[in-house]
Amino acid sequence: MQLLKDRILKDGKNLGGGILKVDGFINHQVDPALMFEAGKEFARRFQHVGATKILTAEISGIAPAVMTGYHMGLPVVYARKHKPITMPDQVFLTLAPSHTKGRMVELIVSPEFLAGGERVLIIDDFLASGATILGLVRLAETAGAVLVGIGTLIEKVFEGGRKKLEHLNIPIESLAAIERMEGEVISFQ
Amino acid sequence: MQLLKDRILKDGKNLGGGILKVDGFINHQVDPALMFEAGKEFARRFQHVGATKILTAEISGIAPAVMTGYHMGLPVVYARKHKPITMPDQVFLTLAPSHTKGRMVELIVSPEFLAGGERVLIIDDFLASGATILGLVRLAETAGAVLVGIGTLIEKVFEGGRKKLEHLNIPIESLAAIERMEGEVISFQ
Repeated sequence: MQLLKDRILKDGKNLGGGILKVDGFINHQVDPALMFEAGKEFARRFQHVGATKILTAEISGIAPAVMTGYHMGLPVVYARKHKPITMPDQVFLTLAPSHTKGRMVELIVSPEFLAGGERVLIIDDFLASGATILGLVRLAETAGAVLVGIGTLIEKVFEGGRKKLEHLNIPIESLAAIERMEGEVISFQ
Repeated sequence: MQLLKDRILKDGKNLGGGILKVDGFINHQVDPALMFEAGKEFARRFQHVGATKILTAEISGIAPAVMTGYHMGLPVVYARKHKPITMPDQVFLTLAPSHTKGRMVELIVSPEFLAGGERVLIIDDFLASGATILGLVRLAETAGAVLVGIGTLIEKVFEGGRKKLEHLNIPIESLAAIERMEGEVISFQ
């Protein structure tokens, strides 16, 4: 998606160590118009997978997932990292390593909103090592749901997450796939 | 906003102790079409305040804030509760008591995205005791920004948060103001 690639080149920053700073338009400050267009593009790419629900993880997956849900006419569930008091005692829970926190975080979904038979499309901001998305995959599988696709705004190809998801045999779409980040230079696939 | 009130009556649950469960359409599972309409309504109500930025708090403020930002053509900043590694060392930080966590949480905004002179519209899911919103107000004031309005999806009138915000002398809009919750009955103002 050219709009997103252009924005990454304009406002993204390579902080070194594989860390891409995009908090000016994705994960601290959000550009709603860009997210709207990204959601429209995901809806186009996944229009034929027969999804019945979108699954993402708080926090930075919420904006692109909600915009995708808007364009596809689907509800969005975001896995919580802390169990709120409004959630029942029986939940689906898995652990996933957090890239930016340097420790394991919980991913929790209420069985009220992820049921067997649902056809789940996962939307998130990043596909890097694939760890968070594999956590979402485990949640969906535990619920007895069927995975039908995975979409991320930005893929860091060099972190190899896509390989870990290939066994699922479902479409994996990223709107901007970064092959290399060297100094000031960000190269797309 | 009748659409939201109807949805609260249909899918909201009074869990007792002033806790309203709306995690089927706002803060775990999200209804994107409802959020889109809520964003449009906030845009209508705040069209004349001259906002230049929308400020919210992660997590459940993100969906309504991003949809409001979409309709108003404004960027959205969400205050983070944990400082990510992509954020500079100098930040705006305040503490606010969390209703659902029973402890203080940090609200952190990077000075990169909240500058003096900005005209800030706060959008969040709930106005209850007003504690989280007062935290956002402190962040905006510390940044030297001007507050121009506060909008929330649901106001729990009986928790009195509005009183604590009146000294700001800015428009405060809630799309569904709940006067009483008794047993199964939820009454709007």
